[in-house]
Amino acid sequence: MNLILFNESDFCAHNRICLRDRRHKHIVDIHKAQPDSSLRVGQINGLSGTGQVISIDDTQVTLEISLTQAAPAQLPLTLLLALPRPKMLKRILQTISTMGVKELYLLHSYRVDKSYWSSPLLAENAINEQLQLGLEQAMDTHMPVVHVRKRFKPFVEDELPAICANTRGLVAHPYYAIECPEPGLCPTTLAIGPEGGFIPYEVEKLKQAGLTPFHVGQRILRVETAIPAILSRLFPTL
Amino acid sequence: MNLILFNESDFCAHNRICLRDRRHKHIVDIHKAQPDSSLRVGQINGLSGTGQVISIDDTQVTLEISLTQAAPAQLPLTLLLALPRPKMLKRILQTISTMGVKELYLLHSYRVDKSYWSSPLLAENAINEQLQLGLEQAMDTHMPVVHVRKRFKPFVEDELPAICANTRGLVAHPYYAIECPEPGLCPTTLAIGPEGGFIPYEVEKLKQAGLTPFHVGQRILRVETAIPAILSRLFPTL
Repeated sequence: MNLILFNESDFCAHNRICLRDRRHKHIVDIHKAQPDSSLRVGQINGLSGTGQVISIDDTQVTLEISLTQAAPAQLPLTLLLALPRPKMLKRILQTISTMGVKELYLLHSYRVDKSYWSSPLLAENAINEQLQLGLEQAMDTHMPVVHVRKRFKPFVEDELPAICANTRGLVAHPYYAIECPEPGLCPTTLAIGPEGGFIPYEVEKLKQAGLTPFHVGQRILRVETAIPAILSRLFPTL
Repeated sequence: MNLILFNESDFCAHNRICLRDRRHKHIVDIHKAQPDSSLRVGQINGLSGTGQVISIDDTQVTLEISLTQAAPAQLPLTLLLALPRPKMLKRILQTISTMGVKELYLLHSYRVDKSYWSSPLLAENAINEQLQLGLEQAMDTHMPVVHVRKRFKPFVEDELPAICANTRGLVAHPYYAIECPEPGLCPTTLAIGPEGGFIPYEVEKLKQAGLTPFHVGQRILRVETAIPAILSRLFPTL
């Protein structure tokens, strides 16, 4: 937790926040904070700055905050991701917010096991919890916007053309693909398939909607490795 | 397991290999192989090609192999990595071989918890098992060479200058650093610190040995995210 994140509901007075949950525990156990200690804090979807410890005890910590810094810029990226298996989903959500993805669609695809859709990790709260862990790591405050789409075809036919219009539209795909484009900060729509990849029918539908298949070499990467590798290749250092 | 790897000890006759362990189970459960099925196989540090099922039963599978293809090129990279905590080490070793790292030094550093050095995952067999999982994923056969160095200073003073001589020497470091260099296939020595980073003394020693600090932006990445992000940035598509 490089940044302690809070939201509206954590305010207990003007410019003061009271924290009780794992953040309190982290401030006690890791920062070993005392009254007057200064910590880095950030308001979700807002500014970051410092929080000075006003009081701290076994159950809560009160911080007086001063917010002055803008969060790092987000990547101008809408990521379409075939739903990973639940164990991977947690880490992947953290990676996505850590790397500054702006918007995420979790999609069904032929090679996604249908049982994954009943995971409790898909509850909005559970998703936000993982995203928040990733933001805390990156010292970012921008919560990515997440959409869940359980049906591939209606999404790709009815929604995707408008999403990828006027963006750099790409689907990561090892076969019959162009080399990875040069880094650029242009608005981008990027689809990444499940383990085993999108099936040819799906690639065809994604192409019809406006995405171009590209590859990042002949090695087949796991999804959680492919995401940072591809994002790092597509966007310049921010 | 996109590629079934074997070594000398798996040969049971000329051009025939007999597999019994998790590879047998994978061939039965996932490939649902029958006599005459054809599977992708590769010899560790050798060629890859096809293996035709000669016989298969509950305990072993015999494959007749034909090896014709070279493995994907390795990255001309010696990676120095502060020893990650054991849970992360497994995944990181897989990532390293999946991405084609040629040589790896696992290093001590101030922020590495000393208890990590007693992990059974550091046994040679355990390291090779994880590396092999990564190769199977990437369809590579080149086993990275791994060295373990429990003392930072003697390594950096006595060994590192020769390792990084005539290479692009880099240490990933968010502060007082240059931007990430352009992709290039030149021989590279890259150091990546532990969670929390190398301490200033260590960065200074690494600089004296010939490494230049660089950053990949203001976001602080976890080590397992930083590795694919940085490798993907430093090397062109292979």
